This record gives sequence, C-alpha cells and structure tokens, in this order.
Amino acid sequence: MKKLINNPDHVVDEMIEGFVAAHPQYVRKLESNKRSVVSVNSGRKGKVGVVIGGGSGHKPAFIGYVGKGMADGVAVGNIFASPPPDPILEVTKAVDGGKGVIYLYGNYAGDCMNFDMAQELASLEGIRVETVLVTDDVASAPKGEMEKRRGIAGDFLVFKAAGAAADMGHDLDEVVRLAKKANDQTRTMGVGLTPCYIPQTGEPSFELDDSEMEIGLGIHGEPGVKRGELQTADKVADFLLEQITGDLSLVKGDTVTVLVNGLGSTPYLDLYIVFRRVAHVLAEKGISIYRSYVGEYVTSLEMGGCSITLMKMDDEMIELVDYPADCPMFVQT
Amino acid sequence: MKKLINNPDHVVDEMIEGFVAAHPQYVRKLESNKRSVVSVNSGRKGKVGVVIGGGSGHKPAFIGYVGKGMADGVAVGNIFASPPPDPILEVTKAVDGGKGVIYLYGNYAGDCMNFDMAQELASLEGIRVETVLVTDDVASAPKGEMEKRRGIAGDFLVFKAAGAAADMGHDLDEVVRLAKKANDQTRTMGVGLTPCYIPQTGEPSFELDDSEMEIGLGIHGEPGVKRGELQTADKVADFLLEQITGDLSLVKGDTVTVLVNGLGSTPYLDLYIVFRRVAHVLAEKGISIYRSYVGEYVTSLEMGGCSITLMKMDDEMIELVDYPADCPMFVQT
Repeated sequence: MKKLINNPDHVVDEMIEGFVAAHPQYVRKLESNKRSVVSVNSGRKGKVGVVIGGGSGHKPAFIGYVGKGMADGVAVGNIFASPPPDPILEVTKAVDGGKGVIYLYGNYAGDCMNFDMAQELASLEGIRVETVLVTDDVASAPKGEMEKRRGIAGDFLVFKAAGAAADMGHDLDEVVRLAKKANDQTRTMGVGLTPCYIPQTGEPSFELDDSEMEIGLGIHGEPGVKRGELQTADKVADFLLEQITGDLSLVKGDTVTVLVNGLGSTPYLDLYIVFRRVAHVLAEKGISIYRSYVGEYVTSLEMGGCSITLMKMDDEMIELVDYPADCPMFVQT
Repeated sequence: MKKLINNPDHVVDEMIEGFVAAHPQYVRKLESNKRSVVSVNSGRKGKVGVVIGGGSGHKPAFIGYVGKGMADGVAVGNIFASPPPDPILEVTKAVDGGKGVIYLYGNYAGDCMNFDMAQELASLEGIRVETVLVTDDVASAPKGEMEKRRGIAGDFLVFKAAGAAADMGHDLDEVVRLAKKANDQTRTMGVGLTPCYIPQTGEPSFELDDSEMEIGLGIHGEPGVKRGELQTADKVADFLLEQITGDLSLVKGDTVTVLVNGLGSTPYLDLYIVFRRVAHVLAEKGISIYRSYVGEYVTSLEMGGCSITLMKMDDEMIELVDYPADCPMFVQT
C-alpha cells in the first residue's frame, strides 16, 4: 500500500480540512461538529433540506455532492464506516429551512442505524425528517427483495433527482416521492479488478489472481455474486447490461440515462471503451440513451473496476436529471 | 496489468467511439479523419480556433477539454504518442473561423514535429496558425531553460486561459500573448508512487520499491530528478512547493491559483490531504489562493501519485480563469 497521507488515523479530518479550504465558495464546516459539512447556501427558508452521508473513501460521494441542485449537507464517516448520529443531527439542524429534511444514503446496516437515530433526535427538536434509501445494486439481493439491496453508484442519480426536486421548491412529500421513484427506476452492477487498501490497516479489500475479476461486488469490497476470469471490456459490459436490463424490465422503446462509473484506479480510457459497448448493446435492443455520465462518481479509494448504472427515464426523471447542479465535484449547466 | 479493454491495438479508436457516443451534445468526430474530434460549436465565424492534442492516456486531457471556453478541437494520438500531422490539419481546417488558429500542447519532441508540420500544411491552405507550448514542469530542465521544459498538468490552466481568451473574441495575437503569459506564470512538479501500464506492451512505466517514490517525473513515466523514500503527504507537498514557489519567484502578497492533480489511481482523499498542506504552507508564506482545483486534470492511465501546479494571478489571469467553461470532462459556471 502506497498512499499520499500523513497519520492514517487523521485522514478523514485532514481531508475535510483540505476540502473546505479548497472550496470555500461552496461549503463550510459546522462549528458544532467537525464531521458536518454544509453548503454555504443551505438552510434556505421554505426549501426542503437534503442531507446525504456515509463512510469516506467514495469521493465524489458524498462530500463532493454538496451544492446547489444536489445536497445541502453531508455527515462524514470514517473510511467505509457510517457517521455517528451526532454529525447527522447537526447537519439536519443547519440545513432545515422549516419545510423538513430528506435523508438519502446507501442501504447499509450502520448507516441505517445512525441516520434513524439522528432522525429521532431531529424529530424531538421539531424537524420532520423522511428517509429514502438507495438500493440500486442488483447483485446484492434478488429482485423481489429490493429493500435488502445495497446502494452503490446509483447514489449519484438518486441524489441528483432529489436535490433537483428540493431546489425546484417541491414539498417534502413530493421530494420523497420523486427520490423513491428515482431509486425504483435505477439499477447498477459492477466488477472489481484490483482491491483498495484501508489506510489504517493497509490490508487489501479483497485478493484476486491476476487473471480474475470479482463480479457484482460492493463499494467496500463486499464479495460479489461470483468470481470469474477477467474478460474483455465488451464481455463485461454485455454481462452487466444483461443483469441490469433484465432487472429493470427494460423493453424496446424505453429510454435510459447511463452512468459508467470508475471505482478509483481504472483509467477513463477503459471507461469510455466500456461505454462504447453499452451504447451498441442498448441501440441493438432499441433502448434510447437520454443522457450519459462517464467518469468517477462513487469510488472505493484506489479500487480497480467499474460499474454500469441505468436509470429508466420518463418526463419527471428527465426534468430532474436535466436540472442544473453546482457542487465542488460535479457541475452541470 | 489488468484492464477493461478489448484488443490493445484498438483502445484509442474504441475510446473515441465511446467518447463521441457519450457526449453528442458536445463533440463530433470528423468524417475526414477518425482521430479528429471537434466541438459541435466549433468554426464560429470571427473566433480564433483553439486546437489541442497529444497522446492518449491523459484524460481529461486532451479530448475532455473540447467545448465552450476551452478547445474547439483535438487531434488524438496513440497512447502516450503524438498524433500525426493529418488529424491535426483536419481539425485546424474544421475549427478555422477565418481569424486564425492557435495550437496548444505540451512540449514534447514528437508533438512539436507533428504540430509544426500541420502548421505548415495549414498555411498552404491559407490558415494562419500560431503555437504556444506548455512548459510548466520545473523538474524537466533548469529555470534558465524554460523552452526545454515539458508540459504536464499546467496544460489545463494554459488551455483554460487561451480557450477563455478566444471565446471572449480576442484576435489571434492577443490569444497568443495571453496563452504565453499563462504558461509563463504557471509551474508544476509531481511525484509518482506506482506505475501505469501501456496496453500494448503490458509493461510498467517505471519500477519502484514499495518504499520509494519518483520525484519530478513526467506524465509518461519519464524519470524524475531523483528517487527517494516515500514520504508523508505533508513532506511531499512541502518539497514540491519549495521548488515551485522558488522557480516562480513568488513573494508575500502574491496570489495564485492552485491545482492538485491526481495521476490516475491516487484517491481524491489523498489529493485533498495534499491540498490541505498546500493551503497551510501558502498561508504561512503570505501567498493568497485565488481559486483551487483538486482532482484528475491530466492523468497517466492508472499511475499513482500527484502533482502540484501554481499559476501566479493578476487581473488578466483572474478574468481568464474565472471565465465559464462547458466541456465533457470539465464544467465551470
């Protein structure tokens, strides 16, 4: 493990210091909690507050998505570990504009426990909070058990949809409805080629032979559905798309937004080669691409590999996906 | 070497296909040459055309910077190899709006030869072309020999300045003056921790022990000024900044734009930890930060490491750096 860090115990706090110093026009750290970061524009009266969060090591997720049209605030956990309730509560109070707050995060036991606790504490302070879990990873549970599925790169599209809905001025019930709909229409599956290394332990997240890949793994290196021989980009794309289009019951004439997401160390060159095949296959199936994102949107430190996400589009989703966003690590005009 | 590719001989053409398919609202491939990609808005009458280019494997550079406020077109070479004159000439003809064209690229022998040849061919067709080389790498030649220095991450800031100047409507002489000034005021130095792998050979770009780093290396894995023990992020930042601030003769009261650039596989977490130290050191020196960029701007496939770039600011540079840009891989409002 070779990293550009100082003390492994301080990586998250030092990262937040650097992040806030780099982007003062976008974000500030709360004085009440050093793991609570909010948009400089947060707390707008009459706007539903959008709070995201989770473990560190996934940048741009989550801290990079704090800004106009996305999240109002983020609670920052340790590497791959949920933030405790306190920073979540402090962010909630800071971003509340009197119209309630929505929590959005990937479906992991630790996050659920801590965000639920923060939600209870917020309600004691008179802030109504609703939660929408992101559950886009088709590899993590069968189709009938969406509520057991993890949230991975689909986080980005669900945050984008909810952030847009809140910025448009919708009320909390409507933001929740649209966020749930965005999640219901979004599916992801990925492959891992090389592991990442947790700074504090130096241990690889998984071990693979030079000829192997892990199919359907999670963004913390959770085991996949299977381990297979390393395939060409086209074969990987074909396999992932088959799972995703089947799970989303896509048919000829449907329209999707595509996200090809790098896990950390996979070159953009490779991601565009994967995207090329995605475009071919969808065209063959008669499925139109409305918009495409290719790059690093939800990473796992220096993990190698990628995921493919499809979001089924309709007029409501088009309006939300098209809505502008201006964040430290994501800008759309 | 584990990559998500198909045939190693086809990676660049397949990447371009994927890139154009992903971003049809931004770019199109010329029919006259499959390695020529231009902005859908290029060729605007009365606007100086901005042409960039170089080898592949550096994304976002170069193809990701084609768009409004940046480049009008790009000639795409093979991995780490200059494009030949033909795609450069075709791009030149396509983006010419009658006011001449500026070529901007990093100072490498192959690129100089091919772009110079394209320039001659363009002049035969009545298109005036001027060239500004990016020479920001302080490690590649002594201070008195700027013209021998390589172009690395500073490419981004010089492209940004020239692209803004051209979009504002300045004439070719003025765009050239501002691009040269941007380059004169920009310095970069980097460290490499882990190599990248050329798809066609599978060979690492350099070999380092687990405890070593390469200091002052180039973006194709060219040897650095020295090889040293892997240091903490703070010590790396201190060392790089000392070289850069000295070379740029920065003094108390100066203002800079900072770019902390990841070479490919280094996590954003690490880059922000490096940025934190940069901000501390500059504050101690009484140098103000005008704007900061942290992320992947000029990469070397999956190389691990980072570079630090400082651009000395004045009113002209502020206007150019602040100018909006809208490209497939870089958006600034």
